[in-house]
Amino acid sequence: MHRVRFRDPAGSIREGTYDPASDTVAFADEEYALDSPEIDVLPPTDPSKIVCIGRNYADHAAELGNDVPDRPLLFLKPPNALASHGDTVTVPAGKDRIDWEAEIAVVIGEQCKAVDADDAMDVVAGFTCMDDISNRDDQNREQNWVRGKAFDNAAPLGPVLATPDEVPDDASVELRVNGKTKQSSDRAHQIFDVPTLIEEITTYMTLEAGDVIATGTPEGVGALSDGDTVEVEVEGVGVLEHDVRIP
Amino acid sequence: MHRVRFRDPAGSIREGTYDPASDTVAFADEEYALDSPEIDVLPPTDPSKIVCIGRNYADHAAELGNDVPDRPLLFLKPPNALASHGDTVTVPAGKDRIDWEAEIAVVIGEQCKAVDADDAMDVVAGFTCMDDISNRDDQNREQNWVRGKAFDNAAPLGPVLATPDEVPDDASVELRVNGKTKQSSDRAHQIFDVPTLIEEITTYMTLEAGDVIATGTPEGVGALSDGDTVEVEVEGVGVLEHDVRIP
Repeated sequence: MHRVRFRDPAGSIREGTYDPASDTVAFADEEYALDSPEIDVLPPTDPSKIVCIGRNYADHAAELGNDVPDRPLLFLKPPNALASHGDTVTVPAGKDRIDWEAEIAVVIGEQCKAVDADDAMDVVAGFTCMDDISNRDDQNREQNWVRGKAFDNAAPLGPVLATPDEVPDDASVELRVNGKTKQSSDRAHQIFDVPTLIEEITTYMTLEAGDVIATGTPEGVGALSDGDTVEVEVEGVGVLEHDVRIP
Repeated sequence: MHRVRFRDPAGSIREGTYDPASDTVAFADEEYALDSPEIDVLPPTDPSKIVCIGRNYADHAAELGNDVPDRPLLFLKPPNALASHGDTVTVPAGKDRIDWEAEIAVVIGEQCKAVDADDAMDVVAGFTCMDDISNRDDQNREQNWVRGKAFDNAAPLGPVLATPDEVPDDASVELRVNGKTKQSSDRAHQIFDVPTLIEEITTYMTLEAGDVIATGTPEGVGALSDGDTVEVEVEGVGVLEHDVRIP
């Protein structure tokens, strides 16, 4: 099943069923094209936190000159970082390099703590797409990646939440900028798989229903330019599209 | 003015007026002793994020062998880290060193972005007390302090929210463990003052009403033991007390 959260023409927030074949969202008797100006597509969840994983693909760790970590490298994006499908996201001005990073994002389905990897898929509501936008200027000179990763609009998320049965174990993840493919990999290349990540995170932190785990980006990151259109596509989920504004 | 948020005997969440002289909380016709078993004291705010400042007192930077930063060192605690006055907080098991850190915490009063330091006190609802509990084992071996700082119960907060007029510019901050003073300093010793912190944070991130900025800890941190009672006292605010359980 595929779902999309949106604001309907009356301004009410609805969670509709998404049909990938027709690219439409249905709620009750109404049906809208996903990109219809009648609706405002929202992130598919309203998380209390986004727990992100750095260097979870060996080829991406290598391209930034980093070793592969011996346990998941964790960082955080608070809710202020969220942006939606169809948004033009404004990123910090005056930086040399703000990068795209395509990611498969996990949406948690229930409050949980101390989850064993063997049981971890029970707490997963589904998967969506994320662009982990990264301000390298600041990231490279701070201990914790807050200016680098937690700024407003640093987490375009959505639009579709796909249940786990829709997403193969080797689901592809691809990112295009202005139609040109820049990243192309799949889940099977992740160093730490989703159950391992959930076990590790919930050793320390309670995850709430709606929280997001962003599972890392593969090789092919690069700098955004003002006016770019970015698409993140995850197999079995759909396509997240956003534009970029650099003031 | 001083306020305390609590769950009343019927289970409803109320925000009462706190009288420091009598150590009581009043709401409508009811009055309770702060530590009455009839009420359950809550953190004075329900933040979407806690933005914390590292190394904001020169004596504390020195005691951990660190330089003073050239701009505020930021890190994040998500809402799962919150704990309340009067709680026995369970911290991660099997660690060599989990430290106390007394902090003066700022509670934000309105949604804001790109705030000038000159106007920053306009967005401050008030001040409260925080213990920035720190798991050094993990903090010292991770890039971002997530296992180290963002675990469940890592942010006992409260109980009193005091308006800015109640809190002097050189308000003292003190921490006691089992009645013995371990930290004693004041706001005037902070490297970056509250207006500077608000300007810097809101350059990157929107702060929401209720969000918290933890302004850093002075010299005198040390390791918690199972069964310890910790008190954090901020002049003009009050005393936060919690017990510690190490499984």
